[in-house]
Amino acid sequence: MEKITIDIGATFLYPMPMVLVGSVIDGKANFMAVGWVSRVNFKPPLFSISLGLHHTNKGIDENKEFSINIPDVSLIEKTDYCGLVSGIKIDKSELFNVFFGELGKAPLIKECPVCISLSLFDTVKLPFNTLYIGEPKEVFTEKKYTTDNMLDIKKVNPFTLTMPDNHYWSVGENLGKAWNIGKNLKNKDF
Amino acid sequence: MEKITIDIGATFLYPMPMVLVGSVIDGKANFMAVGWVSRVNFKPPLFSISLGLHHTNKGIDENKEFSINIPDVSLIEKTDYCGLVSGIKIDKSELFNVFFGELGKAPLIKECPVCISLSLFDTVKLPFNTLYIGEPKEVFTEKKYTTDNMLDIKKVNPFTLTMPDNHYWSVGENLGKAWNIGKNLKNKDF
Repeated sequence: MEKITIDIGATFLYPMPMVLVGSVIDGKANFMAVGWVSRVNFKPPLFSISLGLHHTNKGIDENKEFSINIPDVSLIEKTDYCGLVSGIKIDKSELFNVFFGELGKAPLIKECPVCISLSLFDTVKLPFNTLYIGEPKEVFTEKKYTTDNMLDIKKVNPFTLTMPDNHYWSVGENLGKAWNIGKNLKNKDF
Repeated sequence: MEKITIDIGATFLYPMPMVLVGSVIDGKANFMAVGWVSRVNFKPPLFSISLGLHHTNKGIDENKEFSINIPDVSLIEKTDYCGLVSGIKIDKSELFNVFFGELGKAPLIKECPVCISLSLFDTVKLPFNTLYIGEPKEVFTEKKYTTDNMLDIKKVNPFTLTMPDNHYWSVGENLGKAWNIGKNLKNKDF
């Protein structure tokens, strides 16, 4: 079929993982919904979150600490709510059961299957957004979310985002083993 | 249930979108599988890919151009193969039907539902990986992958990755509208 071009500004990843980024601002925990997030370094493990002009930026800039919490589908309404209302106007500190690890300014969400506290490693200013690169200090989960001591995505039950149609999606079926199912193409002619 | 901590190095996003990054090296198209990818800026739209020490880096460093192609599940074996074998040893230029847009060094994959050609915007050196930030110049798709002139993830049919268990996953059900389903929490007490 013929290729068509689409608006470059309306192009995203399909799909994007949804996380709740936590920070402390004026002494209170605040959370925002973020889909522009990625692991970016092997050793040390580093994660990037890309933020526009948000209340959260103030907390990260001041404290050099933040959190990444992975919500499950039962938290979808609360996650979406965090993306709808700004911490400038609405106090979101009571929305979840908050706990802290060793980083006192990286608020973690007890209800989330995976909670990562990070110290700020670097800040990259982009034309509109700021890329905050963080180094995990502690990662919390619960035994029930793991299989063979690894996080099990079907137990974690996270959800993803698509833009610009703006929908959330569950994780579907297991399609096979990575770094493995391509092996039968080795030594083939193309 | 009680929280436990897990190894910070074994922590990833759940799940990660899978893409094929294209580059031209020594006059030949090369492709690698990448799950550490993110949209990172609103205007202009920018995307980051985080690469370790790969053959692809040479092509991007030299040409200041690369591509991001989103494969569908029918391409899962070929995508995995691209993650298994290095372009240093194996010529992957015949693996797909390759075409080019206006960027002569950003090879695009005809079989992929979404093909993005990017010019290099910035390079961020991290301790182990390099973060290549690219600005899309053209985005190609086909009419059959869209609904209401937007990319439709159920028609695109991409897949995602989890680590460290190393599995691929399809996209599941539609769970609701983003920036919308949290509205009924407005004006509630928590």
